[in-house]
Amino acid sequence: MTPSTTGCVLPVRPELADEVPYGAPQLDVPVLLNVNENPYPPSEEVVASIAAAVADAARGLNRYPDREFRTLRTALAAYLAREAGVTGLDADHLWAANGSNEVMLHLLQAFGGPGRTALSFAPTYSMYPEYARDTNTGWVAGRREEDFTLDPDAAVRLLREVRPAVVLLPSPNNPTGTALPLETVRTLLAAARTTGPDGPDGAPTASVVVVDEAYAEFRRAGTPSALTLLAEHPHLAVTRTMSKAFGMAGARLGYLAAAPALVDALRVVRLPYHLSAVTQAVALAALAHTDALMAQVASLREERDGLVAWLAAQGLQVVPSDANFVLFGTFEARHEVWQQLLDRGVLIREVGPPGWLRVSVGTPEETRTFCEALADVLRGPGEGREA
Amino acid sequence: MTPSTTGCVLPVRPELADEVPYGAPQLDVPVLLNVNENPYPPSEEVVASIAAAVADAARGLNRYPDREFRTLRTALAAYLAREAGVTGLDADHLWAANGSNEVMLHLLQAFGGPGRTALSFAPTYSMYPEYARDTNTGWVAGRREEDFTLDPDAAVRLLREVRPAVVLLPSPNNPTGTALPLETVRTLLAAARTTGPDGPDGAPTASVVVVDEAYAEFRRAGTPSALTLLAEHPHLAVTRTMSKAFGMAGARLGYLAAAPALVDALRVVRLPYHLSAVTQAVALAALAHTDALMAQVASLREERDGLVAWLAAQGLQVVPSDANFVLFGTFEARHEVWQQLLDRGVLIREVGPPGWLRVSVGTPEETRTFCEALADVLRGPGEGREA
Repeated sequence: MTPSTTGCVLPVRPELADEVPYGAPQLDVPVLLNVNENPYPPSEEVVASIAAAVADAARGLNRYPDREFRTLRTALAAYLAREAGVTGLDADHLWAANGSNEVMLHLLQAFGGPGRTALSFAPTYSMYPEYARDTNTGWVAGRREEDFTLDPDAAVRLLREVRPAVVLLPSPNNPTGTALPLETVRTLLAAARTTGPDGPDGAPTASVVVVDEAYAEFRRAGTPSALTLLAEHPHLAVTRTMSKAFGMAGARLGYLAAAPALVDALRVVRLPYHLSAVTQAVALAALAHTDALMAQVASLREERDGLVAWLAAQGLQVVPSDANFVLFGTFEARHEVWQQLLDRGVLIREVGPPGWLRVSVGTPEETRTFCEALADVLRGPGEGREA
Repeated sequence: MTPSTTGCVLPVRPELADEVPYGAPQLDVPVLLNVNENPYPPSEEVVASIAAAVADAARGLNRYPDREFRTLRTALAAYLAREAGVTGLDADHLWAANGSNEVMLHLLQAFGGPGRTALSFAPTYSMYPEYARDTNTGWVAGRREEDFTLDPDAAVRLLREVRPAVVLLPSPNNPTGTALPLETVRTLLAAARTTGPDGPDGAPTASVVVVDEAYAEFRRAGTPSALTLLAEHPHLAVTRTMSKAFGMAGARLGYLAAAPALVDALRVVRLPYHLSAVTQAVALAALAHTDALMAQVASLREERDGLVAWLAAQGLQVVPSDANFVLFGTFEARHEVWQQLLDRGVLIREVGPPGWLRVSVGTPEETRTFCEALADVLRGPGEGREA
């Protein structure tokens, strides 16, 4: 409750009263490796296409945007079909919103809410409990194993116990970079058919299984996408984003693929016209340049593998990564390591289980600067690396 | 609950199970006067500015946008100060989101939610109950008087009875076009200081009073804005939008002004990076052209007054309007009138109390087409106008 100078108290919800806005520090630092952005800005060719598409959209900005944005949904379906090698996807299977966090909000508004629970397995993406809180959905976090993999049997037991309306499975996981084997996802999907809350007829519904593939394009060779499971699983939603591989974090375009009936439930809770005509135009323009925007994904993957090897060579623990970031540690005093890197102009993220730090994969030059700074910190006095 | 072909049932929230997505029909018709859009597209000069601003933003789209968007908030504060003749507004008083519907969502997430109630007075904006539903907030609609004005004493009685966390007061009201006298708002604000839900100490909090001024720029001379009451009322939020007077419905930029403590509560529930770098750039570019974009507001006001007079001259009931639309009637069979207008290429809105229809103010040519079509319908056989 916020007292005011003029004698009335705002009815802030009690669970929000002591909260601060979520978000990593936005600091002005030479090397930004803290929020898993793509280090490569769009080319001038892409910029010109975006500007032209927006100019075109701007001529009709006095009108509301296309609420159903089927042109964009069709383009996203085509992209996913190609990226994951799946068939049968069309606009009816696609949904999009202002960032995949708004997609998650729609999922929890449609399937979560009061009296219902969302389940994930820690360490997991730190925003999930906030989405749950913002939609008045209960929140349960099970545990991953010591190596951050998921034990399918233990996970299924927890599903049966918790009866979650929504299960959130980031793959690759954030902040660990761990991808789920398809077999694990299959096992969870099979169990999830009857682990949801009871329906009006008393029979159990399904848990909606959300595989959050925000970083999927960075996965190593041989790691499949859960998109390949869509056709057989009406309770599966695979979320993606243009923020990472496409390098479009500033454009805010998250999306998902799921069975049309699942998408239809999201259409009910979305705010009308949630996706501006400009956002639609920017996303379409970017999708037309998929190959150019993705050109650096392969080199970022190589850069990541090199970084994992270098960190391991320093005697650090490193989690195998299918994403564009690497979790490493462990440090007795991780905050001091984080701060000393920041003092050297390198911003990384203090996140994940105690003792671990997460660094995004930048350009080769940024990675070199990070490695030099970290080597310097590790050499220095007062660094508390664990034995 | 949605049965699937492969044997599992989605856990759609029961209250959503039979709902369809909200929204006026998006039909391809020559004269679109159904969703209160500004009929004037931006000039080529404005389009060029927007394209240039977006090109500039696009060069950094690989990075997340400025979460706090203080540049935009400062520009919006400056605009409001000028428009309403108020002083002391700065970025800390401003908030913005993807359309004023997302601003409302933030308000209800911060102050509403389970166990709390939002109150408005019908006829009122038809989206409000959906915002309440989407945030699990209770919904109570009091009544306006026969002439669609608000009786302040009756309204205060209802506030004391309902103890709403949030009161939604559109002014000018949608769909009636009725603006609230400042004195009525003052009376409600005074009562609302202690009509909110009980705080943790058992003492009553305030009801947050939201004056929704989406159409404020169209108000008639002498109608003040509730912005002039902000300084003395920490529980007042005045919402605005760039969709209407600015003619930027496709850009999705809603905003509000309130005391900084109220804004801070919204910052906790907003999704991080909810406002894209592109949206911020477009809004800033448009604000730099305020005078050009607003050039037609004065003529739309005149057009509206002419339309009100013409409708009255046909012997119809017309509600005095401070907005860019007019509610008129009444018809025994309004759907038939609506359909017959549509058959003549004119799409208006079937909304509001039974018997009434709402028409947006278009260009002079569009208004002429509407008037001719309506005159034709009124002359025709089978039209069920009430005696």
